[in-house]
Amino acid sequence: MTEQTVRDVIMIGAGPSALAAAIYTTREDIDTVLYEKAAIGGLAATTDMVDNYPGFADGIEGLTLAGHLEKQAERFGAHIEFGDVTAIRDEKGVKVITVDGVDVQAKTVLIATGSGYNKIGVPGEDEFYGRGVHYCATCDGAFYRDKKLVVIGGGNSAVQEAMFLTRFTTHIDLLVRSTIKASEVLQHDLQEFIDNGKITVHLATVPTEIVATDGKVNLVTAAKDGKPTEFHTDGVFVFVGLKPNTQFLAGSGVELDEQGLVKTDNRLETNVHGIFASGDVRSGATMQIASAVGEGATAALSIREYLDDLKHA
Amino acid sequence: MTEQTVRDVIMIGAGPSALAAAIYTTREDIDTVLYEKAAIGGLAATTDMVDNYPGFADGIEGLTLAGHLEKQAERFGAHIEFGDVTAIRDEKGVKVITVDGVDVQAKTVLIATGSGYNKIGVPGEDEFYGRGVHYCATCDGAFYRDKKLVVIGGGNSAVQEAMFLTRFTTHIDLLVRSTIKASEVLQHDLQEFIDNGKITVHLATVPTEIVATDGKVNLVTAAKDGKPTEFHTDGVFVFVGLKPNTQFLAGSGVELDEQGLVKTDNRLETNVHGIFASGDVRSGATMQIASAVGEGATAALSIREYLDDLKHA
Repeated sequence: MTEQTVRDVIMIGAGPSALAAAIYTTREDIDTVLYEKAAIGGLAATTDMVDNYPGFADGIEGLTLAGHLEKQAERFGAHIEFGDVTAIRDEKGVKVITVDGVDVQAKTVLIATGSGYNKIGVPGEDEFYGRGVHYCATCDGAFYRDKKLVVIGGGNSAVQEAMFLTRFTTHIDLLVRSTIKASEVLQHDLQEFIDNGKITVHLATVPTEIVATDGKVNLVTAAKDGKPTEFHTDGVFVFVGLKPNTQFLAGSGVELDEQGLVKTDNRLETNVHGIFASGDVRSGATMQIASAVGEGATAALSIREYLDDLKHA
Repeated sequence: MTEQTVRDVIMIGAGPSALAAAIYTTREDIDTVLYEKAAIGGLAATTDMVDNYPGFADGIEGLTLAGHLEKQAERFGAHIEFGDVTAIRDEKGVKVITVDGVDVQAKTVLIATGSGYNKIGVPGEDEFYGRGVHYCATCDGAFYRDKKLVVIGGGNSAVQEAMFLTRFTTHIDLLVRSTIKASEVLQHDLQEFIDNGKITVHLATVPTEIVATDGKVNLVTAAKDGKPTEFHTDGVFVFVGLKPNTQFLAGSGVELDEQGLVKTDNRLETNVHGIFASGDVRSGATMQIASAVGEGATAALSIREYLDDLKHA
């Protein structure tokens, strides 16, 4: 490939959404390159067991599912390359993507870089990720039926997800760094769970370590009003915000919402003609593999339509 | 169940989209009933090989995938019942669903009835349905081993299914009303079958009647460039698009688009609060299993949110 080659589509990211899109585009002989800066399969690849991706009756390991998606995309001819995309711009309709400092060109772009979960940054958090430390209640809550949990955070999502998790758990300790920042409506709802003993709220409580015995998370240590305290638990859910991987879009003209997620229309096109977005990076994302994959397929059909229109323009 | 029981969610249809939604709702202990009037797995179950459902690197048989989805939904507690839903209405927020003439009640409804096959509307078509006239190559193709067929249509599915049917047939006449609208890849593939004499394409050819002798279909009459012509055959397969299964929504107040597909917002809620739609029945549907499944997951999360709001209202 010379620097002048204009690819049909460059996908930024190689998580489930981009891989699904690539299965569709390459199966129709649309020239497709994916740039991934970290791990093929995205967050899914780092997930221990995926219970709810439709089609695997007994669940499937995240890494295995990621491998299937990669193999399937490559079977049809997807090129997956490692590279850090730092900027994209539109030059009279041609999309210019800066990868590891080099400009490459494409007729269309799919932004599928996903979102990361913010971390609290304590010992044990990374070590037990997916094996006692979780960031997605919908994904992993059901593994804690009749167990007790520590939930960390004080914003809307922490309160909402803590209440949601009570459908599984016997009890939840909700650790809040300062005070609860959730909406009044949510705080009002939360009161019910406090009253019936399902959730105990601990304000001014800063976690200091997630501790396991024999590889099994069973304790969170914290400082409450500065004094050391402990919470015995079967697992930990952290909800301290999402971090969309959209830093490289600064200056691109692609519109983001107030959380930094990429805005799209129904066809998953952004405000920049020929630039699409799908999966967890998209405004309205559900953080579910099934949704990300479905959106990848939908985006691919929109991309095909865009390329057909270009051809006949 | 008494008539007074109000289910959390009733899903109409048990195709991939409803099954995916049910995996999500039941996994969160949301009481979920699916009513299916025909086949569990919907159109997917009638599809020979699904090559592009993400997660199965080498493809998967439609019926096998449908079986996986059903098993997965039932593992979490979905109730799948056979029944014909003929009407739904909203009574002060409670959804009333008429199934086989009996009213059942639910807090929310998911419309996931998919789309059926369009007909060409010629004499003989209805009369010989299933006995010489077919719409599903996977279901009925094997009845035409070493026989010749007429295939009607010019889109992706007509071309794809005609090629598939050649595994049984000695020869296929493909009757195309105007010109072939299938993707370039499919047209490229089709050329092989034309070159080896397995398929003959007849453009500008409009079928006028399907004729039988002694109850056995043996002739299709047509107008080719306006002039009458005949095709001797052992059977007819029609692939001229899909018809949304939305007849039961007449009088429901649920808004449809000009094609009869159900309109939804980004959260997949219809204009009637508490009634959602996903999959091939939804306006904007891509007719892809991946999209239908993704939408099922998204709809399930919206349904959960709606139920949570009800609880705290």
